[in-house]
Amino acid sequence: MTSLALEFDHLTDGLTGEDFRKTFRHHPAGVAVITGDDGTGPVALTATSVISISAEPPLIVFSASALSSSTSTLRSCDSLVVHLLSSEQHWLAKLGATSGVDRFSDLEAWTRLATGEPRYLGVPVWIRARVAAQISAGASTLFVLHALESHCDVADAAGATTPLVYHDREWHGLTSKSKIEV
Amino acid sequence: MTSLALEFDHLTDGLTGEDFRKTFRHHPAGVAVITGDDGTGPVALTATSVISISAEPPLIVFSASALSSSTSTLRSCDSLVVHLLSSEQHWLAKLGATSGVDRFSDLEAWTRLATGEPRYLGVPVWIRARVAAQISAGASTLFVLHALESHCDVADAAGATTPLVYHDREWHGLTSKSKIEV
Repeated sequence: MTSLALEFDHLTDGLTGEDFRKTFRHHPAGVAVITGDDGTGPVALTATSVISISAEPPLIVFSASALSSSTSTLRSCDSLVVHLLSSEQHWLAKLGATSGVDRFSDLEAWTRLATGEPRYLGVPVWIRARVAAQISAGASTLFVLHALESHCDVADAAGATTPLVYHDREWHGLTSKSKIEV
Repeated sequence: MTSLALEFDHLTDGLTGEDFRKTFRHHPAGVAVITGDDGTGPVALTATSVISISAEPPLIVFSASALSSSTSTLRSCDSLVVHLLSSEQHWLAKLGATSGVDRFSDLEAWTRLATGEPRYLGVPVWIRARVAAQISAGASTLFVLHALESHCDVADAAGATTPLVYHDREWHGLTSKSKIEV
């Protein structure tokens, strides 16, 4: 596993945090919940920063804030599960984003893979991935993941889901009605 | 500017490219167009990989494929403009994703900032940013940007936009109707 640190202390001419946050409220994102266990117990984190950066090799990137209680454990994991959420699973997105709760107290809501990683049940699309690199940047860590296996147990005959989207502190669900005809 | 390369040649047990792409069709994303000019002329790229990774310092990450004609020029730029698109600007998203066209042939569609970067007109939300780091990973480059200035010229009194979302090879627009009441 590669571990790098980017330094930004010399950069003092940037946008204020307030202006930056205000601008990014205009940028929507798909929602994922990331789980892992470094041997000290399962952790989960809701992330709106999951991107696919390469298909060959299959690489995923996401960012986790140092302020999140799960981040230090995720940093010690060799492998993680990335759950890509549909609108039916916004309960899980909220669970993974709520501070001070036990995200694994409902023993019927999750299981473990044969390889040990915790996985929430009832999420049709998920990926197991190896942590290939970690890059510290500002107050966050960028995780670079190498995808090892994926599951798309989508019941709909057309294989369609209604993905969950986060935008300006609200949840949205994509449907045929939100589609733009071009 | 920091330049790094992550090596993945030793990883041979990952998902196939086909399975990886199929899985990520379930993951929606906000849409941005990124412009720059290294002195050889303006280039533009549609990206569905823009994420905010830190507010203090204000850091943005996006990924550009080596297969894109714009990527080598973007890699030579000191600064870029990130346009965050609303559904009204899906014409621009399509322009930045179409191969073999001159993306700057309409001289009334774009201008230059005083600092030289090309910027498309009619996009209310955009950010000028310095390229702080580039990380080669697989067949892509991860750009880490430090945000220098932002503009949110949103006409709506409530400051609302109807963001453009890409999902499963289709465009969507978020509205009050796509909102999930929780």
